[in-house]
Amino acid sequence: MRTLAKDLPQKVGETATVCGWAHQIRSMGKLAFVVLRDRSGMIQLVVQGEVGFGAESVIKATGLVRANARAPGGIEIEASEVECLSAAESPLPLRVNGSLDKVSLESILDNRMLSLRNPKLLSIFRLQSELLRFFAEHMRSEDFTEIKTSKIIGTGTEGGTGLFEIAYFDRKAFLAQSPQFYKQAMVASGLERVFEIGAAYRAEKHDTPRHLNEYVSLDVELAFIEDELELIELEKRILKAVFAGVASKDADMLELWGASAPSADSVDAAPTVSYDEALAIVARTGTKLYELNPEAERILCEWSSREHGSDLVFVNDYPRKARPFYAYPKGSGTLSFDCLFRGLEITTGGRRIHEYPMILDSCAAFGLDPASISDYLSIFKFGCPPHGGFAIGLERLTQKLLGLTNVKEASLFPRDRRRIAP
Amino acid sequence: MRTLAKDLPQKVGETATVCGWAHQIRSMGKLAFVVLRDRSGMIQLVVQGEVGFGAESVIKATGLVRANARAPGGIEIEASEVECLSAAESPLPLRVNGSLDKVSLESILDNRMLSLRNPKLLSIFRLQSELLRFFAEHMRSEDFTEIKTSKIIGTGTEGGTGLFEIAYFDRKAFLAQSPQFYKQAMVASGLERVFEIGAAYRAEKHDTPRHLNEYVSLDVELAFIEDELELIELEKRILKAVFAGVASKDADMLELWGASAPSADSVDAAPTVSYDEALAIVARTGTKLYELNPEAERILCEWSSREHGSDLVFVNDYPRKARPFYAYPKGSGTLSFDCLFRGLEITTGGRRIHEYPMILDSCAAFGLDPASISDYLSIFKFGCPPHGGFAIGLERLTQKLLGLTNVKEASLFPRDRRRIAP
Repeated sequence: MRTLAKDLPQKVGETATVCGWAHQIRSMGKLAFVVLRDRSGMIQLVVQGEVGFGAESVIKATGLVRANARAPGGIEIEASEVECLSAAESPLPLRVNGSLDKVSLESILDNRMLSLRNPKLLSIFRLQSELLRFFAEHMRSEDFTEIKTSKIIGTGTEGGTGLFEIAYFDRKAFLAQSPQFYKQAMVASGLERVFEIGAAYRAEKHDTPRHLNEYVSLDVELAFIEDELELIELEKRILKAVFAGVASKDADMLELWGASAPSADSVDAAPTVSYDEALAIVARTGTKLYELNPEAERILCEWSSREHGSDLVFVNDYPRKARPFYAYPKGSGTLSFDCLFRGLEITTGGRRIHEYPMILDSCAAFGLDPASISDYLSIFKFGCPPHGGFAIGLERLTQKLLGLTNVKEASLFPRDRRRIAP
Repeated sequence: MRTLAKDLPQKVGETATVCGWAHQIRSMGKLAFVVLRDRSGMIQLVVQGEVGFGAESVIKATGLVRANARAPGGIEIEASEVECLSAAESPLPLRVNGSLDKVSLESILDNRMLSLRNPKLLSIFRLQSELLRFFAEHMRSEDFTEIKTSKIIGTGTEGGTGLFEIAYFDRKAFLAQSPQFYKQAMVASGLERVFEIGAAYRAEKHDTPRHLNEYVSLDVELAFIEDELELIELEKRILKAVFAGVASKDADMLELWGASAPSADSVDAAPTVSYDEALAIVARTGTKLYELNPEAERILCEWSSREHGSDLVFVNDYPRKARPFYAYPKGSGTLSFDCLFRGLEITTGGRRIHEYPMILDSCAAFGLDPASISDYLSIFKFGCPPHGGFAIGLERLTQKLLGLTNVKEASLFPRDRRRIAP
């Protein structure tokens, strides 16, 4: 019967068996100290004689659990039996048991199968699993239904640029940029409130610390809303639930990165400014910009932090030409918004057009052929409630929560312009 | 303030506002009965005069809630105000408020945006959302970490057949058939226990009631197991949790389909038979088969139901040539299994090879070039625990739970040989 490292304090004075990776090995001749790492933590083993395996080998050890003030965590196992279940080659191409701060991201990603064993790097994905959990739990608490929609689409949804093409038997198909059309369809189907956790694809040649060609999109869409302000309130509730969840359950992972989750008060304090106001705030810093580019996002978040004590800022009322054809118009603007978090846009959303004549007009204004999106248009032809939604980028949320430099660090197996392996 | 249909019994004698779809309209000249459908249920509206909208229009109505024994559910609203928020064209290409039993699946799928409004069809996906929830909750209760891995891969994982090719900038890439290699990597990373809910792609020209070219795979993988029997026990625990969840929370959806979820006892009673025994059981019915094809799956489930009172049967010890190169060998067989549910295979799994020399031997035996899967092989080179896992097909599980004829009915926007829209 195996005992996890975290449960050993209850076993002092007893014999226990542990399994895991040889995290660190210090040979002292007649005996050796082996730190064993399992999914729950670490434990020091005291082994008689030479150990016949190298770091990262997978071992199984049995022995007396005893208190020892000098052992890490105050406990160790005097191993009477040690078995090597799988030997690791040495030297390792990358150190698992030390800091990887000086190793390049390219090298970390090239050796992904091994670098993920580094406890600090692995904690990124333990935390990400929790973000998925708290997001889904919150959506369900507000009566949202989880959906899974196809990522293979016959035609480009928003003009056809930036799509990866698939050879689909004897036809062309594409990877979906977002579940936008499908989540709208599911709102109109009567579910009213839906969320989807799924992959999204962008065939864009960006190579920046903020772009991935494949990412996980946390999509939300709901019926019977008036404007984007309701969506902003919903996103605040979601973020508060997620941040409160990780702050209370995952303090150890945040601590590894010297990170903290925003408090509920600071999320509530997040200001909402119009696109024009946002440009004016940026202009007051002496930076002249004609659009909200990455530099503007940073400036706006610094402003929000300074003036409102919040790591978040919402920008609404984007001009019509800056938004897709389905954005609900209001004068020359739209009922749309972005959410910026610690200097980075993590969400785009807004109310959508739900009236059939209006969406046809918008197709014409944007030069879209209605015939090419007839399935989508049928959503509106047969009665569709007023609705809207947004999407949160999972990797960007992870990145900014932990303070990672590059969004690729928050993707297990990131895809970029050059990388399709491992 | 909007009230949901399900909350109206608490509002009798008060004025309430409801929003939803005009499910059914009966005009009687001076007044009309409109059944309004929202995400929570239905309510009858009594409207004075003619209604100016057709079925499926989205409306908002306000009026006195009153008891009426002749109204469906015993309650109705005497509408003083009715506003049409979005008018539906008529006639509808498909009836939403009646049975679609006589409508062909092709027509249902061609008109997917509308056919999903049919409450019975929509209930399939309400239930599916619950399957996702109970699956994830159970995995977390057993300390599994949720992962999200790339669906874009550089090389075919299992020989390269059956893969959809993607034009990835100036290179070729493929859509992953499964997260097999990645989930093994994440077990070896130290997470030990992982699950993934993600899309899987098969470029196979099947056109059967049991195949989809894109489906949702519920993947599970864990370390420190001895054999496939432990995996079968784990799958039984998962299925019991999922079935108990829907039986207690979603009885209304099951009832719409005249379906019931297997009891915990009947899951526990599921027999495990070896591949050879399974063939012998089939042979005893007079059906001579040389492999476990769909007909054999049906016969085995009938046998299990009759002899063991279970809708499930597990088949293990598949011959080596019937399993992938990473299946753990045992004599001429493997430590592998399938799970059959109500006549259909819903799961394939097994223990995997974790020793580096053994996986190299297996590559050679299967004619695989180790260089082509070097990232995968590095998992084993640097210490990997004994491990195994399996995958449950979400749509097949949904199909068999509800008794659907075709697996495509259990996919919101199914993809097959000919269908890439809507």
